[in-house]
Amino acid sequence: MINIAVMGYGTVGSGVVEVIDTNGERIAQRIGDALNVKYVLDIRDFPEDPIQEKVIHDFETIISDDEIQIVVEVMGGIEPAYTFVKRSLLAGKCVVTSNKALVAKHGAELLSIAKEKNINFLFEASVGGGIPIIRPLNSSLTADEIEEITGILNGTTNYMLTKMFYEGADYASVLKEAQDNGYAERNPEADVEGYDACRKIAILSSLISGQQVDFEDIYCEGITQITVEDMRYAKAMGTTIKLLASSKTHAGRLGAMVAPCMLYPDHPLYNVNGVFNAIFVHGNVLGDAMFYGSGAGKLPTASAVVSDVVEAAKNLNRNVMTMWKEEKLRLEDKSSMKRRFFIRMKGNVEEKIEDIRYSFGDVEIVKVDGLDGEFGFVTPIMMEGDYDTRAKSYEDQILHMIRIED
Amino acid sequence: MINIAVMGYGTVGSGVVEVIDTNGERIAQRIGDALNVKYVLDIRDFPEDPIQEKVIHDFETIISDDEIQIVVEVMGGIEPAYTFVKRSLLAGKCVVTSNKALVAKHGAELLSIAKEKNINFLFEASVGGGIPIIRPLNSSLTADEIEEITGILNGTTNYMLTKMFYEGADYASVLKEAQDNGYAERNPEADVEGYDACRKIAILSSLISGQQVDFEDIYCEGITQITVEDMRYAKAMGTTIKLLASSKTHAGRLGAMVAPCMLYPDHPLYNVNGVFNAIFVHGNVLGDAMFYGSGAGKLPTASAVVSDVVEAAKNLNRNVMTMWKEEKLRLEDKSSMKRRFFIRMKGNVEEKIEDIRYSFGDVEIVKVDGLDGEFGFVTPIMMEGDYDTRAKSYEDQILHMIRIED
Repeated sequence: MINIAVMGYGTVGSGVVEVIDTNGERIAQRIGDALNVKYVLDIRDFPEDPIQEKVIHDFETIISDDEIQIVVEVMGGIEPAYTFVKRSLLAGKCVVTSNKALVAKHGAELLSIAKEKNINFLFEASVGGGIPIIRPLNSSLTADEIEEITGILNGTTNYMLTKMFYEGADYASVLKEAQDNGYAERNPEADVEGYDACRKIAILSSLISGQQVDFEDIYCEGITQITVEDMRYAKAMGTTIKLLASSKTHAGRLGAMVAPCMLYPDHPLYNVNGVFNAIFVHGNVLGDAMFYGSGAGKLPTASAVVSDVVEAAKNLNRNVMTMWKEEKLRLEDKSSMKRRFFIRMKGNVEEKIEDIRYSFGDVEIVKVDGLDGEFGFVTPIMMEGDYDTRAKSYEDQILHMIRIED
Repeated sequence: MINIAVMGYGTVGSGVVEVIDTNGERIAQRIGDALNVKYVLDIRDFPEDPIQEKVIHDFETIISDDEIQIVVEVMGGIEPAYTFVKRSLLAGKCVVTSNKALVAKHGAELLSIAKEKNINFLFEASVGGGIPIIRPLNSSLTADEIEEITGILNGTTNYMLTKMFYEGADYASVLKEAQDNGYAERNPEADVEGYDACRKIAILSSLISGQQVDFEDIYCEGITQITVEDMRYAKAMGTTIKLLASSKTHAGRLGAMVAPCMLYPDHPLYNVNGVFNAIFVHGNVLGDAMFYGSGAGKLPTASAVVSDVVEAAKNLNRNVMTMWKEEKLRLEDKSSMKRRFFIRMKGNVEEKIEDIRYSFGDVEIVKVDGLDGEFGFVTPIMMEGDYDTRAKSYEDQILHMIRIED
């Protein structure tokens, strides 16, 4: 029997217990041994729940119990999660976590302790919820140089953008609706400002580069400025708008960014709608691949956590994860990243076109019926820095700029 | 250094050598040791190719060389591949293959030899080309009961159906075009009759059930009967037609089938176009997931083969694959599988509607402008057997039946 401790009995923690209850027999077949949840650590009691008999309030019970071989950290936040996880690993216990903040900040150190101890620190659920992506990167896409990972990594914002696109609703009303039905938090900042997606792309960037990528170094723009008018332009152009978190390597330099982008229908991420997440990967020999599924939710996330528990149980004394070094990766400067830009500008296109062509080159004009006093245009491929230079001269005329993902 | 032998220097075999040449450094980092292609077995010589110095014509060279730890079988066909693979495994050499015919027929036996010898028999490239699916099933989706796998598993037919749908072309002309540009063989039977997809879903069904699923037991219908008119109905209904290979578990019984099906836009496989493949998976706790990518092609397939070589190299004396027993699984009888059916019928809907409602229940009529003398209808959910019973009475009136995948 393999004894585990679950730290945190919130949504994901109770899901983990439920998944092990529901599929315990099949899971035991796969491990070749039964899984037993010996402790559940929480500051609360759950008198109405049969879990209560396993509830403990003191982490010392876990760390001092030699029977506990795997610790599941689903508390969230940096502290006390970090201290508990580090102490568990140092005590020779495998750790599985769904905590993206913890992994983004301390992943390199925790992986290196696990390697030293010849055990595992696993975090499949920290990115993409139930979508298998960390393990495929670690053990399936191993023949390739991964040149790009671009993901829709936040279900809340994807739900909101989908509603705005298909129903023409405005940002404020879809946010309220998302909050009312539980898809968005009362304080939605982490989602709508892109911070959640940013931590996840930092983790993926660290994994593919093998070095520490700090999320603070990644340019991050949320969806709060996306308007009904933007969506009308998107439709007129045959595109949709998605919050993309991406990491691309050009000439050996990795550039990462989180921003709302226009996507054309031939992009595999174009049709990822509602609360679903998806991760597009381009390998130098594999070509394009995509992984799609539930990016959040109690059971999908718990499924990913428990799959890590199975992996840890099958490799109790054998380190299997790719490392990333604590040494920080110098990211490509945002200003040298290249792409096309869509710009909405005040005024009359006939009066301004010559001037715009002088500044931006051979642009493509977009007009939307009923949107008077403004027009849109798409620039040729140019560097972010060159865009910024030009945008300055039109500061009071640019209504909005949205990047295009080709 | 890890020495490998590549058996077969055709498209995939030369791709394997190319991938190892191109990404050798990164691959060596991941393994912690360098990979060396020591032999290439082929009946031909390649005097213009630097590979020539490694070409051998006798399998005995491989089997008798203790330095060869991993054998890559990319010859295709059952013999001599089966004999070579079995002898390699019995000699304690790991085997990696892309050979779906071999895996579908002898997978259970070869896996069991590998397990006995504590080595590995790996076959990621046998299903879905470059799409990681075998290893994710083996080591990522391990917390779930997999209740459904439905895939677009053949690129040739998907390319043809995509052309027919978007361009209104007929079967014969898209087949000719696919043959002219190398997407389809001169003898296209294995693709267009669904046999290729059938072997692949047999492998996936064996893996998720843990028992032998013979492809001969799976009902298999190809795309040769799909017409321009069928596509017009599909468009009118807001659906598309895809060749689906699927395996679904109801009440503990697994039913498998290969057939062209109508799909609605909310299905994750709806937008999988051209030569791309994708595999939809439903787990009882994970919910829906999908894996998308290049289902064939030299480098994507070679990428999957080499990722197996990396896995084998990291686990030289340690069996990591899920087993499936040689004991045959009794599949659910086709006649008890349930779904909706779309039927094209000769004649006048007004005259026949009462009669059809009497036989099929509350059907939904579909009319396409310009298709006179016929009409279509969609049945309620019913068993295949019950459909067959009813279809008999209308034998001379039914123009075509296409299944609906809801």
